[in-house]
Amino acid sequence: MIEAPHLTFDPDAPGVSMGHLVVPGGTDCGELSLPAFSLNKGKGPRLLVTGGNHGNELEGPLVARRLIDWLPEAQTCGRVIIVPVLNPLAVEAWSRNTPLDGLNLNRVFPGRPDGSVTERIADAVSRVLLPMAETVFDLHSSPRWDFLPAATTHPMADPDLMARTVRMAEAFKLPLTLVWNYNDTAGMFDILAQNQGKVFVCAEFGGGTVNSDNLEIYEAGARNALIALGLIEGKAEYPTFLQQNSGQTLETQLSDELKSPAAGIFEPRCSLLDEVKQGDLLGILHPVDSLSAESVDIRALRRSHVIGIRSAAHVRVDEAVVIVARPFKQ
Amino acid sequence: MIEAPHLTFDPDAPGVSMGHLVVPGGTDCGELSLPAFSLNKGKGPRLLVTGGNHGNELEGPLVARRLIDWLPEAQTCGRVIIVPVLNPLAVEAWSRNTPLDGLNLNRVFPGRPDGSVTERIADAVSRVLLPMAETVFDLHSSPRWDFLPAATTHPMADPDLMARTVRMAEAFKLPLTLVWNYNDTAGMFDILAQNQGKVFVCAEFGGGTVNSDNLEIYEAGARNALIALGLIEGKAEYPTFLQQNSGQTLETQLSDELKSPAAGIFEPRCSLLDEVKQGDLLGILHPVDSLSAESVDIRALRRSHVIGIRSAAHVRVDEAVVIVARPFKQ
Repeated sequence: MIEAPHLTFDPDAPGVSMGHLVVPGGTDCGELSLPAFSLNKGKGPRLLVTGGNHGNELEGPLVARRLIDWLPEAQTCGRVIIVPVLNPLAVEAWSRNTPLDGLNLNRVFPGRPDGSVTERIADAVSRVLLPMAETVFDLHSSPRWDFLPAATTHPMADPDLMARTVRMAEAFKLPLTLVWNYNDTAGMFDILAQNQGKVFVCAEFGGGTVNSDNLEIYEAGARNALIALGLIEGKAEYPTFLQQNSGQTLETQLSDELKSPAAGIFEPRCSLLDEVKQGDLLGILHPVDSLSAESVDIRALRRSHVIGIRSAAHVRVDEAVVIVARPFKQ
Repeated sequence: MIEAPHLTFDPDAPGVSMGHLVVPGGTDCGELSLPAFSLNKGKGPRLLVTGGNHGNELEGPLVARRLIDWLPEAQTCGRVIIVPVLNPLAVEAWSRNTPLDGLNLNRVFPGRPDGSVTERIADAVSRVLLPMAETVFDLHSSPRWDFLPAATTHPMADPDLMARTVRMAEAFKLPLTLVWNYNDTAGMFDILAQNQGKVFVCAEFGGGTVNSDNLEIYEAGARNALIALGLIEGKAEYPTFLQQNSGQTLETQLSDELKSPAAGIFEPRCSLLDEVKQGDLLGILHPVDSLSAESVDIRALRRSHVIGIRSAAHVRVDEAVVIVARPFKQ
């Protein structure tokens, strides 16, 4: 008989509880114990905060730990459950996917109790944690990209849930609220939660290295969202990013992801927050095998805002190198 | 008979020449052709500029390409040879080491003509390119680190060469000129060149993502160095970095590299250019497997300057997480 995934503590107990989310073992590895925190102050919003969904995105786990540090002082009502690291195997390998089975945790939801380890983690999160919350913040980041600090969601069929989700994302007061339209969404944690009518916001932040300034911006976004939910008191304010204290709500279409027309080294020629018009130079793709072969310019297709820039990297043909966005029309 | 490594053009020809450095094939792979550029304006300094020594450090190749763009207009004397990508196999894999043989090009100099591909590249560089220059700039960077834009060298036995090398490094006018003392130097390109009495400067730049602002700082450093050599005309100026236009010359001892006392997620709590004193908090190491286990503070051992900060990452025990430095005493 397979043991069921479970928490080692009772999150309905008042006050702070700490322990683990137990993910049963399988044929590929033994049981996992994911550190988990709950703070129950009675009636009010029921929030789940997760990080470390991808193992090379560690801003989330660090911000989650900061919340655990100050929530006991700050939280006035409701219940917050925090799991800083959903995928410890990927985190320990500094890898997006789980090395053991090669799977991307954020593409296997709702998971399977008899699956490989990544599927068992997804199953534990889906069956144990998700039912305990009506709002979910999944804290991601964007290694290898310059990406605006952002609270993101995806288009969804239910207009009421969509409106509530966008409002929640805007409440982070990060420089960017993004309705991100892309077609590789099967198995995402977001989709599962939204299909259950929950408000799900995915926080993103690029930069490649995580410095203390960036962590403060990310933490400020999370704090703003907790204020908006009424879980803590305080005044929500835009954090300063690139000398600005403001935010905008944008959306991407599939064509807003500019792809590399050839293999080569990508040289960024634009900056975050740039407003570009059709024909503006965004980057240059340099062939590696020749100095006399022409480099390829990558230019804006229309008036748009630059929200993500691939780090200088060797890219293959048809890899995303710049992401732009346009004003969001609900 | 093994073909000898060679250039496909005559760098003594006047003006611009472009072609390849041919690295003969071996049992593991066929011949490699590394794009190479030469600009010969007669008498004057003989400089070699290389990038892409490590495949995940692409600022160097991009800055090298920019030099190739504007040198034909700007260079007034001497000869500059530029090879933007020394290790195309590593660059194409976005990997520090060569995937084919697992070797770090910058630890196998002078290489071997009958060795594996990385050793054959080193051999070609050592035997064909290095004899053509009296000064070498090898353009590196520091993925996964916040690291000050820096021109670096290592302590060396010859005080005259040391003084000339430090002066050359300072001429980059980057925020940091660093005499970097570490003990893993066997097989470095630097050491080979210095042992032949050449001035060798290794440029470094951290940040994780390569944005256009950072590329401009790096390019400005290279331009300043070319001005100092007398190869081009112009006025050398400190580029702006973190709102400052200045530079300092520092050195590290082995003990200035602060290591992780345990495995965990490293949270930086200091910033580049911070001047810290004994006991100041530099970062925190968080265990992944428990929320109740104590996090470990990493504190400064002495008065020093923060020059490098490991990106938030999962680290194993005894990995470098912060690098500090002290004033350089020649």
